[in-house]
Amino acid sequence: MSRMQGIELHAIDLIKRAGKYIRQKMDQAYHIEEKTNKSDLVTEIDQHVEDLLIRGILDRYPDHHVYGEEGRIVRPDTLEGTVWFVDPIDGTMNFIRQKRLFAISIAIMVEGELRYGFVYDVMADELFHAIKGQGAYENGIRLAPIKERPVNEAIICMNATWVTANRRIDSNLLAPLVRDAVGVRAVGAASLELAWVAAGRVDGYITMRNMPWDYTGGQVLIEELGGRVGTIEGADMTYLEQTSVLAGSRQFVEDVLTYVQK
Amino acid sequence: MSRMQGIELHAIDLIKRAGKYIRQKMDQAYHIEEKTNKSDLVTEIDQHVEDLLIRGILDRYPDHHVYGEEGRIVRPDTLEGTVWFVDPIDGTMNFIRQKRLFAISIAIMVEGELRYGFVYDVMADELFHAIKGQGAYENGIRLAPIKERPVNEAIICMNATWVTANRRIDSNLLAPLVRDAVGVRAVGAASLELAWVAAGRVDGYITMRNMPWDYTGGQVLIEELGGRVGTIEGADMTYLEQTSVLAGSRQFVEDVLTYVQK
Repeated sequence: MSRMQGIELHAIDLIKRAGKYIRQKMDQAYHIEEKTNKSDLVTEIDQHVEDLLIRGILDRYPDHHVYGEEGRIVRPDTLEGTVWFVDPIDGTMNFIRQKRLFAISIAIMVEGELRYGFVYDVMADELFHAIKGQGAYENGIRLAPIKERPVNEAIICMNATWVTANRRIDSNLLAPLVRDAVGVRAVGAASLELAWVAAGRVDGYITMRNMPWDYTGGQVLIEELGGRVGTIEGADMTYLEQTSVLAGSRQFVEDVLTYVQK
Repeated sequence: MSRMQGIELHAIDLIKRAGKYIRQKMDQAYHIEEKTNKSDLVTEIDQHVEDLLIRGILDRYPDHHVYGEEGRIVRPDTLEGTVWFVDPIDGTMNFIRQKRLFAISIAIMVEGELRYGFVYDVMADELFHAIKGQGAYENGIRLAPIKERPVNEAIICMNATWVTANRRIDSNLLAPLVRDAVGVRAVGAASLELAWVAAGRVDGYITMRNMPWDYTGGQVLIEELGGRVGTIEGADMTYLEQTSVLAGSRQFVEDVLTYVQK
């Protein structure tokens, strides 16, 4: 058996094990929260999940590279070979405060091509995953292609930050989207918002500030369903640095670009 | 037994029955959606739930008044006697598109005093309820008092609409909240966002435009847990018309008022 066969099953196994651990710990957290320092518990969960995922990847694939959010993850500056983009807990504030609406996000890139994407809503036990050319799934059920919708028929996930004064974009460019869209939502976990675009729950996602491990898992899902993921300037991702993200159906992305390029 | 005894059990029974009906229909909807006109199904569910709730209230309490969102609900212009504020499905766009994150909201006012509040996240099967003076609960587990937090320690539920040009408020007044807060979220269902404030998942809720049936269920929850619900000008609610809503802990509300009164 080729070492690459079964890589998606290995990823799913790691994700599910991490999710089970988090849910158990969160359940305990409700009981011990008052007696101890909550932030210690958060750190403990976060680090354990990171260890579980990274050790689980590198034990099996010692020559793969792992890119990720947390301190101890190796951050290569190349996309050669096989690269895993890993966010052990995307949506840290939701994790701490809401105890829900956070996700484990993993993407696997092979020789520069994003091939596998996984976004796992831990508390809802919803696994979104896609394999390039083989479909995208929500808990094993195949997702339909993303519906083409212009801005004025769209629900957009976008944080209010980007329509108020900020260092990254003229807020007057994105503000008209809020007026024209059917609705604006902000979940607080990029990977989950992208997975919701893939699942048709919302129609687009816009941010000025994501790292590759925030968006690549969702990107595989969206691209596999006919949608587009790029920068707010309409460029392709480079996967090596912080970037803006504009994601949705082709029609949505093209429509948003007309607002930004005004 | 007094007719008012057991009123909360009657309300919960109606809400749970409506919720069960909705979940069954939503499950069917996944299968028939492609074959039929989806908006017909939405109308069907909406009207059936409205009928179930209103008939269930007025059959038992024929002299009570019912205020609500939908066309056929009686809209009295007085708060005398016993008044039910009913929103059969709060978060209609989420209901249609996301098939989750919508709620049934009910509040009962007796002689001008809000006494009972219920917010039911139908798809998550999470019932938040409070009886004035007797505590607030999430699925039967007593909720802790709302934590006092200033804006710069708060996660705020607020739609991006209110920090872009709009007819109801100078967007420059609320925009600094986005900069100063820990985070901003937008769920798209007022009653749910207020219930999340009560449950400590977020710290505040701000809108310029709610009807009484949108906020009264959550208001009972928040007030029972020591928090405050009023207008963005710091006034009490009148319960008879559309209004702004500012809700959270006392410290949060007082802090937000300093932004708005600048």
